[in-house]
Amino acid sequence: MSTSPLLAELIEALRCLPGVGAKSAQRMAFHVLERDRAGARRLAERLAAAVERIGNCRRCRGFSETEICTFCASAARDRGLLCVVESPVDQTAVEQATGYRGLYFVLLGRLSPLDGLGPKELGIDLLTERLAEGEVRELIVATNPTVEGEATAHLLSQLARDAGVRATRLAHGVPLGGELEFIDRGTLAHAFGTRQTLL
Amino acid sequence: MSTSPLLAELIEALRCLPGVGAKSAQRMAFHVLERDRAGARRLAERLAAAVERIGNCRRCRGFSETEICTFCASAARDRGLLCVVESPVDQTAVEQATGYRGLYFVLLGRLSPLDGLGPKELGIDLLTERLAEGEVRELIVATNPTVEGEATAHLLSQLARDAGVRATRLAHGVPLGGELEFIDRGTLAHAFGTRQTLL
Repeated sequence: MSTSPLLAELIEALRCLPGVGAKSAQRMAFHVLERDRAGARRLAERLAAAVERIGNCRRCRGFSETEICTFCASAARDRGLLCVVESPVDQTAVEQATGYRGLYFVLLGRLSPLDGLGPKELGIDLLTERLAEGEVRELIVATNPTVEGEATAHLLSQLARDAGVRATRLAHGVPLGGELEFIDRGTLAHAFGTRQTLL
Repeated sequence: MSTSPLLAELIEALRCLPGVGAKSAQRMAFHVLERDRAGARRLAERLAAAVERIGNCRRCRGFSETEICTFCASAARDRGLLCVVESPVDQTAVEQATGYRGLYFVLLGRLSPLDGLGPKELGIDLLTERLAEGEVRELIVATNPTVEGEATAHLLSQLARDAGVRATRLAHGVPLGGELEFIDRGTLAHAFGTRQTLL
């Protein structure tokens, strides 16, 4: 598009969004410029603010605007339950689909030596300390049912056993090879309700 | 999502993009925060810059960062050919698909009395003045083949006749009821090449 370098740059930048290719990016750019400049301005501000101010909770590693996230700081949540998930999006899926009222721990990944992701990168030290505090009575393993997720679940169950904490895993019902993020709420709620003791 | 109001606001703002619903917006927000903060920062800057600095050319009404766009200012384009399109995205489609080297006029809409779009909103005054200048020898009508686009084409052909300018229309081959933006380049190039004289 030779009329505007800024437009070409915008189209290129839109491709950082997942599922957006050249054609979609072009359509999005023209749409907002022709019909929704206020929306585009708001999106620009919120993207900048989110990137600038959303960090990770020091205690659970989930997304947070403050040093300790609202979950970890809440007096209303059951501190004896700790649900371990791979990513913030999985945390949101569990929170939105189930009636869970305990706390979370976010690995920000899964065991994957080829990608350089080992126990250190997943914050296993922090989790070990947390279990040693003695407050947690059940560790709910909610990693994805993929090969790497299963390996991570195995590591987590050993960790729980070493700390003398009961470990549970989401019930069968979660489709193998799938991702928590994309499961319908009903299935996820069912699997959460019938979680089973590991080992 | 109760951990971060900024995150909820970002998800809501992403829905200004066409084809992005609640689920896609959530996926996009988590994706950029987890994996591509640099991309998100760049997108925020470019969105803001585009909205701020891309306006409309005073001569052709297409997108431009300057008062007169690069097409209208170019000495390399044939000033005797004027292609009239409904929107900037159609202009880009014609420019990318065909070997057209003339100028453009962008209506920024189509005749649609119910939406309050009449000749005044489409810049017909400006187009009439342009034709009266006597430089244009062929008006290429490239409105969409929809009911409103056809009505607009009819108005344009009258305008050309009144000014004594030859009017042509894209050849049959463009599927009826479709939108220029979504046609494959080959079909659009063919239709452009076999455009026919109106009336």
